[in-house]
Amino acid sequence: MKPIEYRDAPAEVKAVYDDIKKTRNVPDVNNFWKHLAHDPATLKRTWDSIKEVMAPGAIDPLVKEMIYLAVSVSNGCGYCIASHTAAARKAGMTDAMFSEVMAVTGMANETNRLANGYRVPIDPAFEN
Amino acid sequence: MKPIEYRDAPAEVKAVYDDIKKTRNVPDVNNFWKHLAHDPATLKRTWDSIKEVMAPGAIDPLVKEMIYLAVSVSNGCGYCIASHTAAARKAGMTDAMFSEVMAVTGMANETNRLANGYRVPIDPAFEN
Amino acid sequence: MKPIEYRDAPAEVKAVYDDIKKTRNVPDVNNFWKHLAHDPATLKRTWDSIKEVMAPGAIDPLVKEMIYLAVSVSNGCGYCIASHTAAARKAGMTDAMFSEVMAVTGMANETNRLANGYRVPIDPAFEN
Amino acid sequence: MKPIEYRDAPAEVKAVYDDIKKTRNVPDVNNFWKHLAHDPATLKRTWDSIKEVMAPGAIDPLVKEMIYLAVSVSNGCGYCIASHTAAARKAGMTDAMFSEVMAVTGMANETNRLANGYRVPIDPAFEN
Amino acid sequence: MKPIEYRDAPAEVKAVYDDIKKTRNVPDVNNFWKHLAHDPATLKRTWDSIKEVMAPGAIDPLVKEMIYLAVSVSNGCGYCIASHTAAARKAGMTDAMFSEVMAVTGMANETNRLANGYRVPIDPAFEN
Amino acid sequence: MKPIEYRDAPAEVKAVYDDIKKTRNVPDVNNFWKHLAHDPATLKRTWDSIKEVMAPGAIDPLVKEMIYLAVSVSNGCGYCIASHTAAARKAGMTDAMFSEVMAVTGMANETNRLANGYRVPIDPAFEN
Repeated sequence: MKPIEYRDAPAEVKAVYDDIKKTRNVPDVNNFWKHLAHDPATLKRTWDSIKEVMAPGAIDPLVKEMIYLAVSVSNGCGYCIASHTAAARKAGMTDAMFSEVMAVTGMANETNRLANGYRVPIDPAFEN
Repeated sequence: MKPIEYRDAPAEVKAVYDDIKKTRNVPDVNNFWKHLAHDPATLKRTWDSIKEVMAPGAIDPLVKEMIYLAVSVSNGCGYCIASHTAAARKAGMTDAMFSEVMAVTGMANETNRLANGYRVPIDPAFEN
Repeated sequence: MKPIEYRDAPAEVKAVYDDIKKTRNVPDVNNFWKHLAHDPATLKRTWDSIKEVMAPGAIDPLVKEMIYLAVSVSNGCGYCIASHTAAARKAGMTDAMFSEVMAVTGMANETNRLANGYRVPIDPAFEN
Repeated sequence: MKPIEYRDAPAEVKAVYDDIKKTRNVPDVNNFWKHLAHDPATLKRTWDSIKEVMAPGAIDPLVKEMIYLAVSVSNGCGYCIASHTAAARKAGMTDAMFSEVMAVTGMANETNRLANGYRVPIDPAFEN
Repeated sequence: MKPIEYRDAPAEVKAVYDDIKKTRNVPDVNNFWKHLAHDPATLKRTWDSIKEVMAPGAIDPLVKEMIYLAVSVSNGCGYCIASHTAAARKAGMTDAMFSEVMAVTGMANETNRLANGYRVPIDPAFEN
Repeated sequence: MKPIEYRDAPAEVKAVYDDIKKTRNVPDVNNFWKHLAHDPATLKRTWDSIKEVMAPGAIDPLVKEMIYLAVSVSNGCGYCIASHTAAARKAGMTDAMFSEVMAVTGMANETNRLANGYRVPIDPAFEN
């Protein structure tokens, strides 16, 4: 499928593109949105959800972007790793922070499997 | 396999248990370590790595614990979800922060698959 | 490894290629089979299994192809996403159906993690 | 965390519970929603998304439930496997259909890895 | 679903159970087969495939069982971890070998994510 | 990020590169290490761990490399599949052995999902 550019987009897609550009203060939307635009309902639902979830809250946006990146790395999604590395850097992630996100993500993936393999029972203290 | 309790542990295992208890200021180690103790070399290597990776750095320990939790949730490791929820709460994660970690983790898992399925090409701007 | 073309294939591989071409009414087999041909036993076993599993049954072949695609998207297998998108379209998947498969796959991946993270206990009603 | 029952829920949660019960024609909501209720915004967003995505469209609800189940099985989410098996059965999935969903899901997971391992290049015919 | 015991099984299922018991020299089959028996075609196909794949070949059965275990641990399949730990032990896996399988599996899961996250390009030397 | 070549590396990175080259008897290190070098602490920790885990032990290095490959194939890590296929071949993996690793990995991924989907309870005999 080809990306749908702004000039070729129907009104409902243009409205989402406009909101993304305004919210993120960018001149154009990423390829992710231009492909999702083939399904305007999913485009709108996904953007509305992302906008709500990634907004400042109890956790600040930089931390949210680093969590997003860690999950994308765990899942091995090439596009998502590239786009959320860029997004996290834009939100303030330094080289040192990137390296620490990678180190934590790597360790979590390792110990997740050690816990699986040794079939470790959950400590009663964690059940509360 | 049965967990190896402190009193039954060989000296090299006791040394790791002692360091965990001292570093974390806890009276006993979790089941994870008591099972890993069947392989003292892996116990020591894993603890040394975790201690190094989870220490305060460019990212603070609470954020590291929330990243660890997000990865464990993505991987579906039941033990790790329970233990790192407990660890993150101990490090200061509130109910509101927990909910936001879950919401971000959920969205990342969703959009990772949308990017996969639509075969979105990486934007040139992300390649730098 | 290089793909094994029909003209270079041993008799046992040619026999599988012939059956694939006849069953699917195609002039040549996909790269998947040309690579698996390096192991003729696995080539034959895999084709025989696919042929049996993907045949019309209680579920029709189009639905089976869409399930195959949804799983491949979840697993992030680039080759499989490309080949099963093509196969599903050939079996009748429209653009609107593709978009719905993606939307369902995305939501399932999201709620799978929400269920993991909130450690939701299975409802007694589901245990029957 | 404990499930939040209807009688103890704040008004915004009760409103979502009411809509779930009405839409699905059930006397009570599943544990999934009772746990998500700890985060009313995510509860509402997730329910609204599920309601939109799982509604009849180009694909009928039974097929959508079977895709949801296949993804949940691939991801190994115990709660989701149990709940979506129940949901798919309620939507009309017979024993024979269940078995075919499992067989397709199993084969897809197998061939996804064979394609990964043999590093099969995408056929030019799939790139359109 | 309930497991299907030998005495209650139809002839085609009994035939597979008999072959499993004879091949593995065991008095009864595992729960895996007793559940798969709800779909006799998948039961037979899966057993025939497992029997072929796990037979002695270029790699001996113990190594195959350890690979099976490593994959099951990576995927977090609780049943499979339990059953293939038992199978590998029966085939000769010692405690020391088990620990090394876990250590390798853990490291692979860690470095897989480091490679993903740092977006390491494939070395030209590996492309041959 | 760009790979860090030996000539441009700080002393602590050069020391790790030297140890890798000496241990593996190779003229240069792979891209994996050249990218990890952006985080010298993780570079050193990861190399020290890999060196310890992959050394001859109760399991020989060829088997360890095949397990590493099987896990990388399961996770779909493109770089890791390429590099560990090369490493396993260097350690003695023949074409026939490669094919058997793939076949076992494929079957394990299939039956992991069948066990998940049929919700097979663990046999009491496996619990010891």
